[in-house]
Amino acid sequence: MADEAPFQLLHSEVIQYIYKSAEGETESGRNVTKLENIGFRVGQGLIERLTKDTARFKDELDIMKFICKDFWTCVFKKQIDNLRTNHQGIYVLQDNKFGLLSHLSVGKQYLEHAPKYLAFTCGLVRGALSNLGVKSIVTSEVSVMPSCKDLVIQKSF
Amino acid sequence: MADEAPFQLLHSEVIQYIYKSAEGETESGRNVTKLENIGFRVGQGLIERLTKDTARFKDELDIMKFICKDFWTCVFKKQIDNLRTNHQGIYVLQDNKFGLLSHLSVGKQYLEHAPKYLAFTCGLVRGALSNLGVKSIVTSEVSVMPSCKDLVIQKSF
Repeated sequence: MADEAPFQLLHSEVIQYIYKSAEGETESGRNVTKLENIGFRVGQGLIERLTKDTARFKDELDIMKFICKDFWTCVFKKQIDNLRTNHQGIYVLQDNKFGLLSHLSVGKQYLEHAPKYLAFTCGLVRGALSNLGVKSIVTSEVSVMPSCKDLVIQKSF
Repeated sequence: MADEAPFQLLHSEVIQYIYKSAEGETESGRNVTKLENIGFRVGQGLIERLTKDTARFKDELDIMKFICKDFWTCVFKKQIDNLRTNHQGIYVLQDNKFGLLSHLSVGKQYLEHAPKYLAFTCGLVRGALSNLGVKSIVTSEVSVMPSCKDLVIQKSF
């Protein structure tokens, strides 16, 4: 039980720490960037360990499938529920029970806090993809708290 | 595989972030305190989840055994290797293969960097004990890198 608890709690505390130490500053965008950067480097390190013994990827879709399955399972102990793509460089990953949001209350009133709980994960995926040779822009959308989450990956050419 | 990798990597990045954002400041002691505080709160949250359904602890030694077994396993995927006590409020926990140090090179030249990789863990244990009603001072000693580690818990009366 509680296998992912240390990671989740540490993640929450990092957010707390960054937002608290920047109190008084007007731009909250900088905090999101900091979290995104931390995620980026964790993603880089993680994908290196995970792909150490895997076969070479066939194509981009193959990479995305690896992110949705192995990579996501390693971090969040479950797979991505739904992967969609337009086959032109845009991928949408959907996680119906996203661990880093599940401790927030259900309801629209906390929707505005969602971005800070997703910045790390966006960076995580961007870092992993970057190390696999795919430069990308990763953004996130939350429509229904806490469970529904779209991660939009846009390949940058 | 790599179950604890996300946690380890995030832990490393937090250290990096805190030390980098305090560059130019002379006191590195403040960084250690910050890491210790983050650990404290993670420890508090974690012990709450872990003891949700456990029976009440008999005594202090019973608590320490729980920290060495269940708590340690949850965070580091292994138990503490050796627990010693003088039965007067001092406990020494020894982990012969401590995950958060294992990525550092063997050798004495990095010994001076050990404290920053242990501050979080000291706080973690202190936070857990605090929520179980044991006020304590937790310090750490590293003699042989990277594997040997003593965590000294001193009960404060």
